[in-house]
Amino acid sequence: MSIDSPVLAAARRARAAAAVLAPLPRSAKDAALLAIAEALLARSAEITAANAEDVARARAAGTAESVVDRLALTGERIAAIAADVRGVVALPDPVGEVVRGYTLPNGLDVRQVRVPLGVVGIIYEARPNVTVDAAALCLKSGNAVLLRGSASAYRSNTALVAVLRDAVAAAGLPADVIQLVPGESRESVTELMRARGLVDVLIPRGGAALIRTVVEGSTVPVIETGTGNCHVYVDARTDLAMAVGILLNSKAQRVSVCNAAETLLVHQDVAEEFLPLALAALAEAGVTVHGDEAVLKAAVGSPATVVAATDEDWGAEYLSLDLAAAVVPSLEAAVEHIRRWSSGHTEAIVTTSQAAARRFTQLVDSTTVAVNASTRFTDGSEFGFGAEIGISTQKLHARGPMGLPELTSTKYIVTGDGHVRGEDRQTVGG
Amino acid sequence: MSIDSPVLAAARRARAAAAVLAPLPRSAKDAALLAIAEALLARSAEITAANAEDVARARAAGTAESVVDRLALTGERIAAIAADVRGVVALPDPVGEVVRGYTLPNGLDVRQVRVPLGVVGIIYEARPNVTVDAAALCLKSGNAVLLRGSASAYRSNTALVAVLRDAVAAAGLPADVIQLVPGESRESVTELMRARGLVDVLIPRGGAALIRTVVEGSTVPVIETGTGNCHVYVDARTDLAMAVGILLNSKAQRVSVCNAAETLLVHQDVAEEFLPLALAALAEAGVTVHGDEAVLKAAVGSPATVVAATDEDWGAEYLSLDLAAAVVPSLEAAVEHIRRWSSGHTEAIVTTSQAAARRFTQLVDSTTVAVNASTRFTDGSEFGFGAEIGISTQKLHARGPMGLPELTSTKYIVTGDGHVRGEDRQTVGG
Repeated sequence: MSIDSPVLAAARRARAAAAVLAPLPRSAKDAALLAIAEALLARSAEITAANAEDVARARAAGTAESVVDRLALTGERIAAIAADVRGVVALPDPVGEVVRGYTLPNGLDVRQVRVPLGVVGIIYEARPNVTVDAAALCLKSGNAVLLRGSASAYRSNTALVAVLRDAVAAAGLPADVIQLVPGESRESVTELMRARGLVDVLIPRGGAALIRTVVEGSTVPVIETGTGNCHVYVDARTDLAMAVGILLNSKAQRVSVCNAAETLLVHQDVAEEFLPLALAALAEAGVTVHGDEAVLKAAVGSPATVVAATDEDWGAEYLSLDLAAAVVPSLEAAVEHIRRWSSGHTEAIVTTSQAAARRFTQLVDSTTVAVNASTRFTDGSEFGFGAEIGISTQKLHARGPMGLPELTSTKYIVTGDGHVRGEDRQTVGG
Repeated sequence: MSIDSPVLAAARRARAAAAVLAPLPRSAKDAALLAIAEALLARSAEITAANAEDVARARAAGTAESVVDRLALTGERIAAIAADVRGVVALPDPVGEVVRGYTLPNGLDVRQVRVPLGVVGIIYEARPNVTVDAAALCLKSGNAVLLRGSASAYRSNTALVAVLRDAVAAAGLPADVIQLVPGESRESVTELMRARGLVDVLIPRGGAALIRTVVEGSTVPVIETGTGNCHVYVDARTDLAMAVGILLNSKAQRVSVCNAAETLLVHQDVAEEFLPLALAALAEAGVTVHGDEAVLKAAVGSPATVVAATDEDWGAEYLSLDLAAAVVPSLEAAVEHIRRWSSGHTEAIVTTSQAAARRFTQLVDSTTVAVNASTRFTDGSEFGFGAEIGISTQKLHARGPMGLPELTSTKYIVTGDGHVRGEDRQTVGG
């Protein structure tokens, strides 16, 4: 790894720019964000022209139209992205918030205060709107950002980042708070992953393979995002109509997202009543069910497409109109199944029993446990964060939807009047 | 990496035990901690006998007496360790704390609640008291712990962990919430570092080499602890006596710890007045000063031992009666020096200027910034946490002294009455 590689040089510039950005007040950051929103609108044509090249190349390479659609930018889409940036302006600045503050018996004042993380690296796929979203959230939280989008969007991202940097510079901030990681090669990702000391955190956003690569190869701390194998558990005591409604919404309202349900678990005491209703509704929604023996039995005579489930189905993140389904003998068995197979994203229980709701929320260890609500609510916007940089599925630092506070760290400020420490039993290990 | 290796088997047992431990109320955990404290006293002889073997081996291997002293356990030391465990009993349980809670416009109740991390791995050196401290803190916070002490303390740790496990089991909890990582080889550390999915976090406690190895080789998320190259900056406007007092306390009250000062920076406007006082006091305390040109000049005729500093001195964590010292032209130059050389642990400013105090605390990006107070206060006990698992010098998850809340994660509990999500613009990326 050369010290002078373009990626490391960019990281070093980001570090210097982050030091300038960190102490700036909200007004300076908001002014830069407003300049970005205006520049996106003013230079929309330039961006769509660059994007058209990416789109043409993608089509020429035989890329699926659904992927091409995610890549494509129009004037309308750019206006929506600019509106999102204005939305970030309206959000409170997390930096400077006193998380804890107290006075010690010896009179020392202790304040734990939110500060920016420093340099944030985002590695993401396809959609160029992420370029602007991520840059805006990092800027608002006082962080410099290194953006590493997919090679297929390189021209679009280059054009977008040029617009963002010009706007930031015009607002009097260092342009290097926003940088596209140079190069389209895999190597630039690897270099980013090894830039410990220059980059404070990496957030991979995209498919499971990308996330695994970053998690396993990075010496920079990583926030793992997004794989979702979410469960809906229908308890013995339940409101059948509510259960059908939550199941359908969780599975089929939008199938390609991480908070969509992939597995249904039904308590045996309610299976006979519930499964015919559920299968009929799933059939109408076009869902293929991958059922265990009990579900297959219940499906006889049903309009639903039900095939036999294998172990692979219990672990699958389908992201499609498919649903694994099993009957379980107890709430504890449902929890056991979830513990074994879930990705720890979101699990829902539908129950009328207070005791069951309490037990399920205690025992299930996922980022979000929903009681009588759809799994689809696990989302920064739905949670009222105003914006989201991703959904963390790890336990360290942030768990669940991440908004602006999750893009910060803290520092302690200790204030005295010449306080010195007396003799005592030492507890510090370092 | 074999699936059936003893280390991974231990991690798997820890995972199962953690699931049992996580939902237990405080009373169950406190009862186990009290049983531990009693068992340590009751089986003190057994522990000291095992420790005597480690001590004898260390002496035979020519280990320095200072290290042997840290390794040695006596009845008195074991009683003090047991008293610390009782101290943990008295601390509030972080699990279950509602960190944020609100109702969304659609009526959904959102609660962010503290939960245990799961399985915590601690890799540490020499002192066997860490074995009990770490186990007690992990137990209180609902985590299973995998302890990997140094090979030199293997017999002591084996005896201690046997006592802890028996006590925990007698209190009705699974003994596997506390385990010593089997084997004394380096390989067991490597296996622990690759046990992603089984171990939720690794906390290395010890020398810089150990920490670097873990940080660079681990796929399990790591909390980096403890390297301290702390600075004391004496501002242009300062109380000279206060500055000398804070400098001496920061440097010399205890030299072998991470929160001891290693570098003095003096504003040029006060250098002529301050340095003679400081050098005299440092000389009396037996401190060798590694000075820049200005300091060397000021030392002429002083009783202090002053040698010329090199770049190595600015980056050194001496952990000895040595101090690097430089004169700087401004507060900003001091900040620049700190940004370049500090390990980001603790930096102190001594000033009478409100503006300087404010600017220094804004610009310095370390776990702790002390204003008119010794660097030695950066410590969980001093901060009133009651206990400390280490001092994080990274920005992710925890920064600065870590107490019980830092050994937890959170989950969201979302409660509705059959809430489903409507059509909207999608923001989830996963």
